[in-house]
Amino acid sequence: MSETSAHPVRPAETSDRALRRDAARNRERIIEAAREVFGEQGLDAPIEEVARRAGVGIATLYRRFPTRPDLITCAFAAKMQDYADTTEEALAYDDPWQGFCWYVERLCEMQSGDHGFTEVLTMTFPTARGFEDVRNHTFLRFRELTKRAKRAGRLRKDFSTEDLPLILMANAGVIAAAGAAAPQAWRRVIHVLLQGLERPARGPLPKPPSPEEIMRAMQRR
Amino acid sequence: MSETSAHPVRPAETSDRALRRDAARNRERIIEAAREVFGEQGLDAPIEEVARRAGVGIATLYRRFPTRPDLITCAFAAKMQDYADTTEEALAYDDPWQGFCWYVERLCEMQSGDHGFTEVLTMTFPTARGFEDVRNHTFLRFRELTKRAKRAGRLRKDFSTEDLPLILMANAGVIAAAGAAAPQAWRRVIHVLLQGLERPARGPLPKPPSPEEIMRAMQRR
Repeated sequence: MSETSAHPVRPAETSDRALRRDAARNRERIIEAAREVFGEQGLDAPIEEVARRAGVGIATLYRRFPTRPDLITCAFAAKMQDYADTTEEALAYDDPWQGFCWYVERLCEMQSGDHGFTEVLTMTFPTARGFEDVRNHTFLRFRELTKRAKRAGRLRKDFSTEDLPLILMANAGVIAAAGAAAPQAWRRVIHVLLQGLERPARGPLPKPPSPEEIMRAMQRR
Repeated sequence: MSETSAHPVRPAETSDRALRRDAARNRERIIEAAREVFGEQGLDAPIEEVARRAGVGIATLYRRFPTRPDLITCAFAAKMQDYADTTEEALAYDDPWQGFCWYVERLCEMQSGDHGFTEVLTMTFPTARGFEDVRNHTFLRFRELTKRAKRAGRLRKDFSTEDLPLILMANAGVIAAAGAAAPQAWRRVIHVLLQGLERPARGPLPKPPSPEEIMRAMQRR
């Protein structure tokens, strides 16, 4: 109310509030535009395109998001939370193997609709603490999911948690190459993979990459 | 010999030959450079970099190879022939399933060492007749390989020849994301896939893309 009446005693606060409101609105618009542009074109999309679509100047954008990772992690914070929630949903399945398979397919589905998220899932952003905390917690919950599926005798014993990023990388390859022409093709590949992960294993596998190797692969930017 | 003596009667021919020799040498140098540059950086690598490394002007390069596909298909002609030969080697296995598995892993290995070839294998170049003839012939021989592996009761019955490009796309995704940090990681993914393709199948699969969809995916450039 005090915002609409031109109260002579506190003009500074009134204009401060308006500025803060403007800033918040700009921020929201930039995040929304980044979500769209990264989703369509991947994480290398031009920042200028984000600014254009948000209707803000490039200087404003850089003031709010000084680096590309700042913008990426803000744009995908909500999706990262969905990703975390997906793990809990999978853990709620009565049949741990069904939960495991549902989870892998669901993650791949999240990748299929969003080029940006496809990349986000196989990368790390060391400077974005909150973002990486969600990822790390989710990873621990995924480890619990694999333990249960192994205890139930359905997931092959030599499955490694490092296999999940490899599956997501493979899925990203199918989506990148076949996405437009055969948008559901990735689903078939994932089902073949899941059947190959079923116990009893049909043979040994080459050893998985180490956690350090996966970490280096995910730090590729 | 007549090239070294300055025979006064046929100077035109002498210089023609020298020009042809120069042209052939330039052509070889360009192809060699293209193989290197595309191999390191993929098929979108700057053409200027190819010219620079070949030590020729950009105009010379464009005169010999007016379009990017012209250059790509010349650069990978030898590798395409290797690819064709690989199919024959696979068909020579006594055990058709072993031949099939060896073939898939070998193709993926060819992709792993060469970013350009990784892309070439999942694309078509409609204007490069000879190149596509080799591919088409190889495809027919691959179909024969899958028939034998099915008849031997080892490859799942619902395997489709359209699954091969999907496997190569998945492999390209693993190589692109993990290649530098975990250069052998693709092998593990391919082994899981191969075990998922073994008969008896552990469950139905989502239907494969149609040949037309795969063709469209491969024409993405």
